[in-house]
Amino acid sequence: MTTIDLNADLGEGFGIYRLPQEPELLDLVTSANIACGGHAGDPIVMRETVALAQARGVAIGAHPGYPDREGFGRRELGASPAEVAALVITQVGALAAVCAAAGARLRYVKPHGALYNRLARDWPAATAVAEAIFAVDPALLLLGLDGSLMIRAAEDVGLRGVREAFVDRGYLPDGSLVPRGEAGALLDDPDLVAERALRMVAEHHVVAIDGTRRLLHPESLCTHGDGPHAALLVRAVRQRLEGAGIGIAPFAR
Amino acid sequence: MTTIDLNADLGEGFGIYRLPQEPELLDLVTSANIACGGHAGDPIVMRETVALAQARGVAIGAHPGYPDREGFGRRELGASPAEVAALVITQVGALAAVCAAAGARLRYVKPHGALYNRLARDWPAATAVAEAIFAVDPALLLLGLDGSLMIRAAEDVGLRGVREAFVDRGYLPDGSLVPRGEAGALLDDPDLVAERALRMVAEHHVVAIDGTRRLLHPESLCTHGDGPHAALLVRAVRQRLEGAGIGIAPFAR
Amino acid sequence: MTTIDLNADLGEGFGIYRLPQEPELLDLVTSANIACGGHAGDPIVMRETVALAQARGVAIGAHPGYPDREGFGRRELGASPAEVAALVITQVGALAAVCAAAGARLRYVKPHGALYNRLARDWPAATAVAEAIFAVDPALLLLGLDGSLMIRAAEDVGLRGVREAFVDRGYLPDGSLVPRGEAGALLDDPDLVAERALRMVAEHHVVAIDGTRRLLHPESLCTHGDGPHAALLVRAVRQRLEGAGIGIAPFAR
Amino acid sequence: MTTIDLNADLGEGFGIYRLPQEPELLDLVTSANIACGGHAGDPIVMRETVALAQARGVAIGAHPGYPDREGFGRRELGASPAEVAALVITQVGALAAVCAAAGARLRYVKPHGALYNRLARDWPAATAVAEAIFAVDPALLLLGLDGSLMIRAAEDVGLRGVREAFVDRGYLPDGSLVPRGEAGALLDDPDLVAERALRMVAEHHVVAIDGTRRLLHPESLCTHGDGPHAALLVRAVRQRLEGAGIGIAPFAR
Repeated sequence: MTTIDLNADLGEGFGIYRLPQEPELLDLVTSANIACGGHAGDPIVMRETVALAQARGVAIGAHPGYPDREGFGRRELGASPAEVAALVITQVGALAAVCAAAGARLRYVKPHGALYNRLARDWPAATAVAEAIFAVDPALLLLGLDGSLMIRAAEDVGLRGVREAFVDRGYLPDGSLVPRGEAGALLDDPDLVAERALRMVAEHHVVAIDGTRRLLHPESLCTHGDGPHAALLVRAVRQRLEGAGIGIAPFAR
Repeated sequence: MTTIDLNADLGEGFGIYRLPQEPELLDLVTSANIACGGHAGDPIVMRETVALAQARGVAIGAHPGYPDREGFGRRELGASPAEVAALVITQVGALAAVCAAAGARLRYVKPHGALYNRLARDWPAATAVAEAIFAVDPALLLLGLDGSLMIRAAEDVGLRGVREAFVDRGYLPDGSLVPRGEAGALLDDPDLVAERALRMVAEHHVVAIDGTRRLLHPESLCTHGDGPHAALLVRAVRQRLEGAGIGIAPFAR
Repeated sequence: MTTIDLNADLGEGFGIYRLPQEPELLDLVTSANIACGGHAGDPIVMRETVALAQARGVAIGAHPGYPDREGFGRRELGASPAEVAALVITQVGALAAVCAAAGARLRYVKPHGALYNRLARDWPAATAVAEAIFAVDPALLLLGLDGSLMIRAAEDVGLRGVREAFVDRGYLPDGSLVPRGEAGALLDDPDLVAERALRMVAEHHVVAIDGTRRLLHPESLCTHGDGPHAALLVRAVRQRLEGAGIGIAPFAR
Repeated sequence: MTTIDLNADLGEGFGIYRLPQEPELLDLVTSANIACGGHAGDPIVMRETVALAQARGVAIGAHPGYPDREGFGRRELGASPAEVAALVITQVGALAAVCAAAGARLRYVKPHGALYNRLARDWPAATAVAEAIFAVDPALLLLGLDGSLMIRAAEDVGLRGVREAFVDRGYLPDGSLVPRGEAGALLDDPDLVAERALRMVAEHHVVAIDGTRRLLHPESLCTHGDGPHAALLVRAVRQRLEGAGIGIAPFAR
């Protein structure tokens, strides 16, 4: 049976702030990218989210981002490759310790927001981050955009790279995402998103905004956790995939 | 031969800011309490300081503090025991990952500033922190004030507690430190400080500000790294101790 | 006709985080205590909230708090009176500039959370803050707890103090609030809260948690903006007061 | 008599951190660009620095920067024009309130670091900032790079723009600065720097790194306050200018 992982960003609250759809999302996904106190999250939220994921058997990943809470890690900070590597190390280490203290296991790393987009196309930064993660723990997987430099850098240094696709984001013909703020960047029709997910898994392609087909071989499908309809979308994706006989299971086992 | 460890707080710069005496201190101490990005330090400073300590064979400890950079972790934040435990876990984890990425080993934890003072006398917080450190890595040692609840809590949960004394701080008759800002809190005469260090190690006591003797059995002596004369004081201490035939060696071997 | 002001804390979102009941609250209150980037708020949220208040004719106050976003300004930071005065000056100045840029007028200052509670009982800090506000702009009013040292300090230095009472908080017999986290601290029954509001205004008392009556002469009634039922409570208060022939109008005109 | 203003960035410490050359610089310059708690500075440092400038008759300017203390405001944050305008408003307002509380007058605004460089060439951002400053207080001057879009935007909206040149930075042929990190970016020979300053004022040019002359008409000369030799450089500049019969006086009178 074909299986696919479903991932979402989680633990992206902070202090009194919580993203309301997160608890429901945790019941739907198989992998949780948990914020590490950089772009979002704080020590208490990190512990709570790890405990919730662990209780549901959801695989736990670290979700490091630029330390820019005002911008939610979505502004390119212009940090040097050395700075980027250092922030990934410390944020991954912080979440790894939370996992250790909970008796849980940290399985993978998925960078966040502007950092994710940068690592998809900036080879020195992607290499610095891949080497940094390998040096911290070579058993960690790196979850990144199918076709990105981040995946190639991971595999070059000896990490296992895991390819993902985005069910609720528009694609450019080159396989990169339509930038937030541009037309077609975000999709929120559950039917459309579910159909898109099925094609990604069953037919290995996505239709880019210019109508061309882009080949994909994702091991995981991501839905954004901070959108107001995130749980609705993941539920639709999950039902469509299961209805088509596709199993939903974490990539990290 | 009697031996003693010398420790100092290090890596307490941040961004462009550096504490100028730090490089010299690293040549004099045997254990470095390295800030973890809470009260001070940032990912780059953490990596640099770990590398410097490693190159000198100085034992590396995590130095977590309240996340209050403006107050340098010296203001009591009034966080709950759960919040305190969570911040210690994430900060220790961050430094542990920096060590792992450098091929170095994190040996111990020493809380900083207001957190240190609180854990010396607040049993629920001390227990929460000791349990948290044990859960992260039971091989970590806890460096704390001789006679404090922090040491007792560590040993209760199964951590090895390491007792320290402060060569450049005044003592109250009960063995606690004269609070910063009060008369006699800080000592900066190298001769006096060196003599005090020798008595702590060779005669197992310190003279409190009221003239009474307080028994001590320190395994490590701390000098504050942020004072302008820190290196001068540690050098004087080291010479006096070595002159008396006392060996200087890390407690963590 | 008797009139009373209704105030709430507003602009307490941050980055992508928003408190969902805020827009509705702005249609119900007559005075808005707007966060200044300390415990909550950021430059964009400040501008947006000032514009919303201005469009509705809601009086604008600055709502400075301890710079502790993780703790939402509810943890006592232990800052010195000089530090407290300095943070009030800079936060009030930041919001005053936002008002000036919008062609709006900043009318008053109401401290937030742990700072508010401290100023109610800490004379040196209350005096330092009152002097600081007076020095920035002697036309600013200070909104504070009826019976608190903050009000007395304001009037001592020449500021006009405005007394408020809390419709959704339990009172101790001495007129202070039941601390958060203790039984009876928070009230959320709209009927009970509305009745309480009416008694505060029409009968000049509140029933403390021990059943005794405490005299009050509030010029403003506060409802907490971050509770999930805040708008519901203010609506109930407003209807009860208006039904009893009491006018709702800002204290600052 | 020809006169020129000398300016430097000041108040760029934070918490326990201080830039050691700042007190001496305050005795040499005629205008102080004081950090506003964004890239550097905190409420206490702001108050201290304003008091020191005021006591010496040094003109006070606000020095807003990206809220990135780790990067000292030298990393381009990629904030939108609206975000940039909002941060300038709140930071300028914070320093204006500090001045008001001290009985001092805020005379001008000079953006910092990456924000300064961006405003020199990004028209939408420069316009947004100029409009924001004008809306806060149209009497504020804007100190910016001679020949930059920032100066043109200021004058377009009705602010007085004041042109400056950098005595210790290399110039590109187009009048922009050699970026930090590139060869020739920073000059630290006092003789060379003093000679360069004299030519800027007396002969109205600077020699760019390719040997070409670039015309300049600065009303103020800037020396960077955070370099280790800052005071040495300003002293040399001041002596050379005074020796040539040029008066040193603030542009804001």
